[in-house]
Amino acid sequence: MSADYKFQGWLGLDAESVNGKMVWKEYEPKPFEETDVDIKITHSGVCGSDIHTLRSGWYPSDYPVCVGHEIVGHAVRVGSKVTDIKVGDRVGVGAQAGACMNQKGDCEACADGLQQHCPHMVQTYNSRWPDGSKSYGGYADYWRGSSDFVIPIPDGIPSDEAAPMLCGGITAFSPLTQNGAGPGKKVGIIGIGGLGHFGILGAKALGCSKVVAISRTSAKKADALKMGADDFIATDEEGDWATKHAGTLDIIVSTVSSPKMPLQQYLQLLRLQGKFVQVGAPEDVVPPINMFALIAKRVSVAGSLIGSPQDIKNMLKLFVEKGVHTWNNNVPMKDANKAIVDMDAGKARYRYVLVNE
Amino acid sequence: MSADYKFQGWLGLDAESVNGKMVWKEYEPKPFEETDVDIKITHSGVCGSDIHTLRSGWYPSDYPVCVGHEIVGHAVRVGSKVTDIKVGDRVGVGAQAGACMNQKGDCEACADGLQQHCPHMVQTYNSRWPDGSKSYGGYADYWRGSSDFVIPIPDGIPSDEAAPMLCGGITAFSPLTQNGAGPGKKVGIIGIGGLGHFGILGAKALGCSKVVAISRTSAKKADALKMGADDFIATDEEGDWATKHAGTLDIIVSTVSSPKMPLQQYLQLLRLQGKFVQVGAPEDVVPPINMFALIAKRVSVAGSLIGSPQDIKNMLKLFVEKGVHTWNNNVPMKDANKAIVDMDAGKARYRYVLVNE
Repeated sequence: MSADYKFQGWLGLDAESVNGKMVWKEYEPKPFEETDVDIKITHSGVCGSDIHTLRSGWYPSDYPVCVGHEIVGHAVRVGSKVTDIKVGDRVGVGAQAGACMNQKGDCEACADGLQQHCPHMVQTYNSRWPDGSKSYGGYADYWRGSSDFVIPIPDGIPSDEAAPMLCGGITAFSPLTQNGAGPGKKVGIIGIGGLGHFGILGAKALGCSKVVAISRTSAKKADALKMGADDFIATDEEGDWATKHAGTLDIIVSTVSSPKMPLQQYLQLLRLQGKFVQVGAPEDVVPPINMFALIAKRVSVAGSLIGSPQDIKNMLKLFVEKGVHTWNNNVPMKDANKAIVDMDAGKARYRYVLVNE
Repeated sequence: MSADYKFQGWLGLDAESVNGKMVWKEYEPKPFEETDVDIKITHSGVCGSDIHTLRSGWYPSDYPVCVGHEIVGHAVRVGSKVTDIKVGDRVGVGAQAGACMNQKGDCEACADGLQQHCPHMVQTYNSRWPDGSKSYGGYADYWRGSSDFVIPIPDGIPSDEAAPMLCGGITAFSPLTQNGAGPGKKVGIIGIGGLGHFGILGAKALGCSKVVAISRTSAKKADALKMGADDFIATDEEGDWATKHAGTLDIIVSTVSSPKMPLQQYLQLLRLQGKFVQVGAPEDVVPPINMFALIAKRVSVAGSLIGSPQDIKNMLKLFVEKGVHTWNNNVPMKDANKAIVDMDAGKARYRYVLVNE
């Protein structure tokens, strides 16, 4: 069976595309394989990665790119070797589309259930499948890719809310579970944007004893408290915030992607054996630290990258159980250029989701 | 019973003392309490901390200071409330002399067996006991202090070898056990000095699959291999060392105290979920890193500080079982000034130990 549909989407042709210059065009997807799924996209979240990629912020992008890796829709074609998805299922795909695409099966990351660190991964967009064809993302009408990371969406979650969970949600949630967030633990979430809002929602869903939202100003304080934060630190407004709140947190998840973060002061907030986990990905080096900050309190600074398919399934299950709702700004797919510009300007409250009508 | 001996030692009177200007003088120890032990010192290791302290490198020192916190000798006076030590026992004391000296008993560090992180600690020298009297170290004939950290020395370890284990040894050993070093693990030790030599000895004693010594030049390569290292990286001599050895190590213990370390490249050496642990304490900030290094491989950068009394006992027991021998340069106590100068000049192979005759 061949598809009776064409693949069209918003393509970034160069770094200028980040300034609202994506163009709606047809493109050629990868050849369909029997391990693949085609998704008719209903929703696609707008992630910070889309912006970094459109402007070649992390590294030169492989233009043309179709960004978007918080994709929800319905499976419209399912390869014969795919066992857990059937045509018509409501499914989603996040930032990663394939792992161990070399088929060697000797990958320790995948063997450890850490497929998101597979060195042979294919990203959902701006990446290449093993045959050399490009991967294209979710600012489009259809998506085609391996079923490896295609996740069934539980009934309890509306599609527009599910979409941003698939990258933003798991990125903020995974470091919480990795580091033992739960009852008895006090957690700080730095940066109250798309990722940070998931950090607060996730920490509350996990039953953490205290969730502290940390931002430069108090502009988002009311929102953060509504999301479930118990306390709020505005670092540009409280002169002595680092000493005042020193030694109070067990885990900090830093979602900011500005490299100008006051890292040394953030570390002061941690208790003995505290964990600082960076999930926002700054395009430049962060400020240098004095190692005493780590030595004196046996503190660690780590990184975390999205999550495995199983991590995503576990998160969705918990979010259904706890009735977690994302804070979205839904906009029509035709307004993708405006959404990108507004997202880059920090206007999201807290995640733009493009909707195909 | 009052003591029939006086306390005399090498005192640093100001920052100039680090240049061979310590003076041998009598000083007044803390008043003896029934929880205290007096040690007649036979051996005192020379630690990098002694140099940092003599020159007020970390922070202004409380002169006069008598440095030395790798002390071994015999108990000559034991308070009535001390249960596990008797007069005549061969004992030692490391960098820390007391924990929870406020006697409140509400310290979570001590409750967790992490007495080395007790906020109410008293260091073996350059610190103050609760009554305000100063703590003096091991470049002396006697040492007086709480029995909290006075450790019995097992029969299998000569006193000159036991002394440097009490600070240098545990500092390098503790991060290995904390991070799961043992069979199947590949460990890198950065800096082949007093701490680094213990890192190699400790990693081998723990049965690590591979121990890689990392130094700027190959000057100490032969020594490192004799200590048990399986491989050696000379970072100033191999241009592409970071890419050549990328992703090969599970744990790195960095013993260097120069802040000019190539931290970003060191992190490249780590495998997925690798741990970088800093134990050397640079007097300045270290170079800034790009957080991608942590995010891409879920790597962490942590600090570690000496060890608890139980950690020290466990290490001594393992070292006896495995027949670990330190590499010492024993010098008479009268030559302490020369030992300090030589130590600061990097001449130790690999630990100076002052010996009272």
